[in-house]
Amino acid sequence: MTHPLQPILEPRSVAVIGSSSNPRKRGYQAVRALLDARYEGEIHPVNPSGGELLGLAVATSVDALAATPDLALVCTPAESVPAVLESCARRGIPGAVVLAVGFRESGAAGAALEDQIMNIARRTGIRVVGPNTSGILNTTIGLNLVGVRDVPKGRLAIVSQSGNVGLALMLQAAARSQGVSVYVGVGNETDVAIHEYLDYLGSADHTSAILMYIEGFQKGERFIEVARRVSLQKPIALLKGGRSGGGDAAARSHTGAIAGSALVLRSALKAAGVHLVERSDELLAIGETLASQPPVRSGSGVVVLSDGGGYATLAADLLSEQGVKMASLSEATRTVLRSLLGRAASVDNPVDVAGAGDQNPEVFARAIETIFADPATGGVLMAGLFGGYAIRFSEELAAVESEAATTIAAVAARARLPLVVQSLYATAHSEPLRRLGRASVPVVESLETAAACIKAAYERGVFLSGAAIRVRPSPPAPRGEEPVTIAKAREERRVALNEVEARSLAVESGVEVAPASFCETAEEVGAAIERTRAPVAIKVVSPSILHKSEAGGVALDVKDAREGAAAFRHVVESATAYARDRGISPDILGVLVVPMLPMPVAELIVGARRDPQFGPVITVGAGGVAVELLGDAALRPLPISVEDALDMLGDLRLAPVLSGYRGQPSASKDALVEVMLGVAKCFLANPQLSELELNPVFAYEERATAVDVRGLLLDVGSLSAS
Amino acid sequence: MTHPLQPILEPRSVAVIGSSSNPRKRGYQAVRALLDARYEGEIHPVNPSGGELLGLAVATSVDALAATPDLALVCTPAESVPAVLESCARRGIPGAVVLAVGFRESGAAGAALEDQIMNIARRTGIRVVGPNTSGILNTTIGLNLVGVRDVPKGRLAIVSQSGNVGLALMLQAAARSQGVSVYVGVGNETDVAIHEYLDYLGSADHTSAILMYIEGFQKGERFIEVARRVSLQKPIALLKGGRSGGGDAAARSHTGAIAGSALVLRSALKAAGVHLVERSDELLAIGETLASQPPVRSGSGVVVLSDGGGYATLAADLLSEQGVKMASLSEATRTVLRSLLGRAASVDNPVDVAGAGDQNPEVFARAIETIFADPATGGVLMAGLFGGYAIRFSEELAAVESEAATTIAAVAARARLPLVVQSLYATAHSEPLRRLGRASVPVVESLETAAACIKAAYERGVFLSGAAIRVRPSPPAPRGEEPVTIAKAREERRVALNEVEARSLAVESGVEVAPASFCETAEEVGAAIERTRAPVAIKVVSPSILHKSEAGGVALDVKDAREGAAAFRHVVESATAYARDRGISPDILGVLVVPMLPMPVAELIVGARRDPQFGPVITVGAGGVAVELLGDAALRPLPISVEDALDMLGDLRLAPVLSGYRGQPSASKDALVEVMLGVAKCFLANPQLSELELNPVFAYEERATAVDVRGLLLDVGSLSAS
Repeated sequence: MTHPLQPILEPRSVAVIGSSSNPRKRGYQAVRALLDARYEGEIHPVNPSGGELLGLAVATSVDALAATPDLALVCTPAESVPAVLESCARRGIPGAVVLAVGFRESGAAGAALEDQIMNIARRTGIRVVGPNTSGILNTTIGLNLVGVRDVPKGRLAIVSQSGNVGLALMLQAAARSQGVSVYVGVGNETDVAIHEYLDYLGSADHTSAILMYIEGFQKGERFIEVARRVSLQKPIALLKGGRSGGGDAAARSHTGAIAGSALVLRSALKAAGVHLVERSDELLAIGETLASQPPVRSGSGVVVLSDGGGYATLAADLLSEQGVKMASLSEATRTVLRSLLGRAASVDNPVDVAGAGDQNPEVFARAIETIFADPATGGVLMAGLFGGYAIRFSEELAAVESEAATTIAAVAARARLPLVVQSLYATAHSEPLRRLGRASVPVVESLETAAACIKAAYERGVFLSGAAIRVRPSPPAPRGEEPVTIAKAREERRVALNEVEARSLAVESGVEVAPASFCETAEEVGAAIERTRAPVAIKVVSPSILHKSEAGGVALDVKDAREGAAAFRHVVESATAYARDRGISPDILGVLVVPMLPMPVAELIVGARRDPQFGPVITVGAGGVAVELLGDAALRPLPISVEDALDMLGDLRLAPVLSGYRGQPSASKDALVEVMLGVAKCFLANPQLSELELNPVFAYEERATAVDVRGLLLDVGSLSAS
Repeated sequence: MTHPLQPILEPRSVAVIGSSSNPRKRGYQAVRALLDARYEGEIHPVNPSGGELLGLAVATSVDALAATPDLALVCTPAESVPAVLESCARRGIPGAVVLAVGFRESGAAGAALEDQIMNIARRTGIRVVGPNTSGILNTTIGLNLVGVRDVPKGRLAIVSQSGNVGLALMLQAAARSQGVSVYVGVGNETDVAIHEYLDYLGSADHTSAILMYIEGFQKGERFIEVARRVSLQKPIALLKGGRSGGGDAAARSHTGAIAGSALVLRSALKAAGVHLVERSDELLAIGETLASQPPVRSGSGVVVLSDGGGYATLAADLLSEQGVKMASLSEATRTVLRSLLGRAASVDNPVDVAGAGDQNPEVFARAIETIFADPATGGVLMAGLFGGYAIRFSEELAAVESEAATTIAAVAARARLPLVVQSLYATAHSEPLRRLGRASVPVVESLETAAACIKAAYERGVFLSGAAIRVRPSPPAPRGEEPVTIAKAREERRVALNEVEARSLAVESGVEVAPASFCETAEEVGAAIERTRAPVAIKVVSPSILHKSEAGGVALDVKDAREGAAAFRHVVESATAYARDRGISPDILGVLVVPMLPMPVAELIVGARRDPQFGPVITVGAGGVAVELLGDAALRPLPISVEDALDMLGDLRLAPVLSGYRGQPSASKDALVEVMLGVAKCFLANPQLSELELNPVFAYEERATAVDVRGLLLDVGSLSAS
């Protein structure tokens, strides 16, 4: 089946609009680059002057073209672009790449111009890449609309929101002779959006792995949807720029404070199977590893093979710190390694040949063979001098070392397990390293980068084995009629539900909420206390007061009707004064009388909200002021399964407390999961909610109880707009 | 003044013991390497066969040498080394470098051999480098005892516990033409220890900065002492290997659990002014930066100058995430930059020239001039294509770009502020980048490494400005006589003080401890409760029960004498059963009756202990089970000043709670500091203590009170040994 973007990324013919005979202009360079790259399709320069350019006939206009090309490369300045696109669309050209700058990124006039482009695309159906793009590249057909030279063919696709990050990757690829299939500079994404490129690359035979540099998502939910599907077929590695700008956590909610946008982003991408890369200088090597190496075998671990203790130690540190399982080699394997490597070697993982290779680098081949034969081995990181023995010690070793490289690559390929090689001599491009490279074994100079590469293969293995056994739940349909509580709040044009309303919504979805009596007078409070026969807490109910404690709207440990009457007056007065000081209407409806609960095993927060980029997400976090500051929270896009909820609880640093810490009782995880699923259900069933927060949730040995519930609605304006 | 290691690291003559005419043997290669490096001193090969080697007369023995050399390079196998060292010592040779392997690292026989070496060194005074060392290098006099070629002269010294990490650094230095002054492979450190090399390098004129790779310290306290002194003169950057092995936290103490050895190490090194490097692949570039660039001006910030949004964004992310202050450029500076760089540029920090350099790389020179002229600028990170404009766009730009490089380097030098350049074309070694290199401006390919380099210069600035105003307190003298409590415990051969004893020690040093009555009977408990007239807690007192709550040895909220008698019986019985179940003597002395305290603003732990490597250290951490799990703690070597204590509190993630979080009251930092200084005083005054822990400390608005105090003594064996 043809992908909608195929004419753009695999065009059979390209018109270069605004071609030029001036070698310093992009309209010349573009034609030159296509010829140099031996583009397989037809090239049609277009310039009003006509004539000939580099042996090609120049058409005087789009209309004058003899045939309709698949793609137009628009090299003309920003102001001319709308007219050019109109003519392209009229001619029936399916796609255009617009290089010009001077659009949204440069102010209001540019933004207006960009809106014109968007409208033309929408109206006519022409698909537009850019504007403000560094161009696209498809090495499989010699399509070079970027101008960068000598990018070798390969199976790694690159999609970048930044031209210089993209350029850097292609320069590195050329320097390392690593192959690229497709490069896309997405530019301003006026029309074609990132997730569409991802969708195309997911279906394209020429690509084994996809590398992305992204600063922001315009349609995060769509991206996640596509990524979730593509990542089951092909690895996606992504570096997110713009991390420091994450100060947008909604200040009015605790959930927002513990789960800022950076956490949403990372959680959503990880849940979709996207491998997050932390550094730009590791991006290419990780992409190369994911494109060329199989994942680490599920359930097994990584083996480090090094010459020299320092590198063995550092590599083991790096992998352990990052949660990569180190394989335990069998007794038999260790015995063979000992006889192979001698007394000075360390044959436990990390394996250190300790000089055994200095006289004979062939021991590496034999050690690798032995290690891959152990079923505990899921992948290997080889580190140290290999590739430089002939350089370091004696030219006489050259032939043996090259032979060893051939064997090493063959052994890894036969095992169908990943191998990454770090070499101090990586930049020397010695024959043994060239052989590894030709066999698609990643060779890198940095030990940390090598560790990041094998880690990527490891996490890919973990993801795929988890994905195989996990079914993603489908979201429940939103309920047909609006609940009375929500209808009432909207009628009153309120955004905040009061606690009584929020509680009733949560309870409807099966969440256990601490029992409470709503009272409007001191007498009712007294009666409620007598019914309860236990000390109670009294909490003010007002949709305009979100932080009750701060407002003095809570009284604890109230023991009888007399104390209850006093407490009632006190919380109402304090809350009124608090509201008055802030110039808001106190709007006090009454109080809730809640029995004092016994000390829980742990205090948690469970909340759901709508992320502007990624849609509904659920958060669970450690509760209490001090703990909230420490930011111990886990997050997932909704819907979630029972396994997801359990995973989230396991992700908390607080997890040991839930499992019974230092002889303390444990908390019921089943009960917590039920609360989380109840929140999820409630939130998805009521699309009018913008936030739902249970804080605190008291976790006990046998149950979990929400003590306080808050709900916020989307504001009326955004509701009617949506 | 001559440094004791000067004969070893600056020898005027070297005897090569075990020289050989076989080019594959180290005894040949060593002589060859000295000749190739044009060693300025005399070379004396020694081999029983005598004769001539590479034009040099070979002495038949150490005794047969015509003159006494400064240094012996011992190339003979392990077994022969003791005899060789004896002959060297007899001849009066001050130092020896022992290359052989086969000592402690290879088992018991090797360890015995190594002990012999140690004894010879101690007895005769000969100083021994190694064994199992990769050798030493001093480029300033052509001393090459490592055999690595082409290491350029420079001002960076390298000390490494791993031969291959050291080799990697020297290979990188050679590839980047960065200069090294001295390299020391410390080997097994049988005699000369790391801190001695550091001391030498601190005093040596040829070295501006010191780079270290360390896996473990044999004499951590001595190292810290030397580092503290040297770091005021020269930057020290250190990568610690073996981080993942940090599972040695003393399980019996909470302080141990929150402050494992990794935290001790990092805190001790940081307090001594050592810059901690996180990755081996950043070590050389950071060392180079510290050796060539001044620190970032104190109080000012870093400016990022980039071409292209992606790199600007990533660089700003990296610096902000790592706590590097970004400079706010003045209105005037921004106006000049705008006119220089045009409409598309971003003139706020990070500054993005956005293509303004494509036609004319000279704008970089003018932008840098403008940026350095702003007093807000403390240092610059330049990132992107610079050095590759001629390659990327047109050869015609080459001359302008080279000129710009010269100007850029000159401007930074004139400003006496640091400049680090990241270039996509770093590996192309273009003329502009070579010019920057010749002017000692670090040029690196990786953006993350470049950020780490400017961060190092920034932290150096912060450290020096802090060091200038901070006086390190001198430790108090240990008290003369032993306190009665400790004497009694030792008499009874106890390691644990009971709570009454520990409390009295803490109170003596001025720590505020919650008042308590020690009671031995139910009647005494009743009387104590009546005196207190408030609900109390009852806690069992037994030196053999360290975790009272776990043992059921605590009763809370006891209101009157009747409840008190019951609680007394209950805690005593529970604790007895607990001890019996664990096969230990219950040894119950009585109970403490403590008034229930009001809820504090925050709960903390303050503890001191003796680290086996770094001596006495103090820890403050967030308290409570859940928070302890999250590992929020700060640590310093003792003694500490008031500023240190305040810094420690500020380092806690809990810090905002202490300052009044979300309208809550704040805690008295003065009172907390007093508690910390009290613990420090008590611990230093009583060298018999191995641990002293206040847990919890309740922090209030006006005071801070220790609720529970525990003390452990060094065990009698280690006491009598010391």
